Amino acid sequence: MAVKLDGKKLSIKLTNDLQVETKTLKNQGIIPKLAVILVGDDPASRVYVRNKHRMAEKIGIESLDLRLAKDTSEAELLEKIALLNNDPTINGILVQLPLPDQINADRITKTISPKKDVDGFHPYNLGRLFVNDPYAIPCTPNGIMYLLREYGISVDRKNVVIVGRSKIVGRPLAALMLNQNATVTVAHSHTKNLSEITRQADILVAAVGRVNFIQAQDVKPGAIVIDVGINRNAAGKLVGDVEQTEVGQVAGYLTPVPGGVGPMTIAMLMKQTIEFAKWSKQEK
Amino acid sequence: MAVKLDGKKLSIKLTNDLQVETKTLKNQGIIPKLAVILVGDDPASRVYVRNKHRMAEKIGIESLDLRLAKDTSEAELLEKIALLNNDPTINGILVQLPLPDQINADRITKTISPKKDVDGFHPYNLGRLFVNDPYAIPCTPNGIMYLLREYGISVDRKNVVIVGRSKIVGRPLAALMLNQNATVTVAHSHTKNLSEITRQADILVAAVGRVNFIQAQDVKPGAIVIDVGINRNAAGKLVGDVEQTEVGQVAGYLTPVPGGVGPMTIAMLMKQTIEFAKWSKQEK
Repeated sequence: MAVKLDGKKLSIKLTNDLQVETKTLKNQGIIPKLAVILVGDDPASRVYVRNKHRMAEKIGIESLDLRLAKDTSEAELLEKIALLNNDPTINGILVQLPLPDQINADRITKTISPKKDVDGFHPYNLGRLFVNDPYAIPCTPNGIMYLLREYGISVDRKNVVIVGRSKIVGRPLAALMLNQNATVTVAHSHTKNLSEITRQADILVAAVGRVNFIQAQDVKPGAIVIDVGINRNAAGKLVGDVEQTEVGQVAGYLTPVPGGVGPMTIAMLMKQTIEFAKWSKQEK
Repeated sequence: MAVKLDGKKLSIKLTNDLQVETKTLKNQGIIPKLAVILVGDDPASRVYVRNKHRMAEKIGIESLDLRLAKDTSEAELLEKIALLNNDPTINGILVQLPLPDQINADRITKTISPKKDVDGFHPYNLGRLFVNDPYAIPCTPNGIMYLLREYGISVDRKNVVIVGRSKIVGRPLAALMLNQNATVTVAHSHTKNLSEITRQADILVAAVGRVNFIQAQDVKPGAIVIDVGINRNAAGKLVGDVEQTEVGQVAGYLTPVPGGVGPMTIAMLMKQTIEFAKWSKQEK
């Protein structure tokens, strides 16, 4: 029976640590502040944004709640970001995705100052991560690394197989793993004999967005399995990319869904905001 | 007997193509211009720089030969780069490495305008490459992809194993391969059972800088083997990372050293300079 990598429990511990840290910083006159921009009224995005504000408040991070109409032009949004880039009280800027069609998300990502890019999606930050000189780190991969570290799992010398090559999970996670001396394989929809490859993984990460994509026969006995997927199954239940019941019999460690990687992501966002606030007082 | 992937021959063909292209551009009033900065008088660096100027001249690229004393301060070099960044006649800036100890190479790399970064080492350019939105691409990996393409070798669905994780070869090559749908594994000094991993490669790339590092037993019969190493063996002869004689019996394709990847690198530098000159007239 796999040991549960309990992201929910760990995120609560981390949140408490961050609360203590913001109190200490306050005594030094540093109050971290995160700006969250929501364009339009997508219901899922509204929930995500609300959760971010709640978490920020709980931890002692000030947050700025910017709601823009769904017909906001790209120029208007760029102008708003420019103001936030130049506002010294703002440490982090997050533009909730997806954006409406009239706005080029890529251009928005490149406009946020790398020093305030809490999501870590700016090419400059991804490039720094890629050459093992990281500044901002994308939250989901960063949360995975944090989870492994807290469970005493070193990735050094491990064979890591990441299934999925997105900009926000697969690719930056590959860089983080490589920077920590894992042997890293990135597999994806064009990979042949995928199961043969996943069975060689000491650490297997599924980030493809498909229900039951990884099954017990794809997993080496004792492997550490990280399930990044968040999907709704036919019954409307929230599930990951890993068929959890049987994989749970084969794997050595397994992240549940929900309660695994998800809660770590938002906690890492808060951690990054606090780090930016500290770094803004230094040269880094 | 492996087919030779003849970088020397191909680089001559590419050079001829680039000559034709610069003539066409000249008729449109576009003259590509590359600035090469050499700090100090390292003999190997002087040879590299001289070869770059010669190749530029041959192709019809103007080149600016900037020689700075070996005690040049970092501030002086940064100032020089700032002038070149702002000079609209300059399309590419290359600072020959290694730099003297008083200069932080990393800071220099980040100061060159990404739009003139012919080496493709700026984090912004590496980040764009990493998310499959490339602008400048490092020359050695770009030369490898060009070589494979010209020999009709697709990397799509192939298992690619890259041994070596440097900023200038292993990492950017991994991104290029992934962007073209290869399943990519990056192995390195911490990799366990390396030979087992390299034997699974359809395309094996050795970029570690050690004589005879890859031997016949590390290679799957018929594999495509790319030897990026440039080493001197005990006899003082220029050799790669691959023991070429026996690997040549096992592999399907093999790049020689010298005459494989090396000549492609400088040709790609020239190609990148010409592209920058064209792009400088456009929004990209």
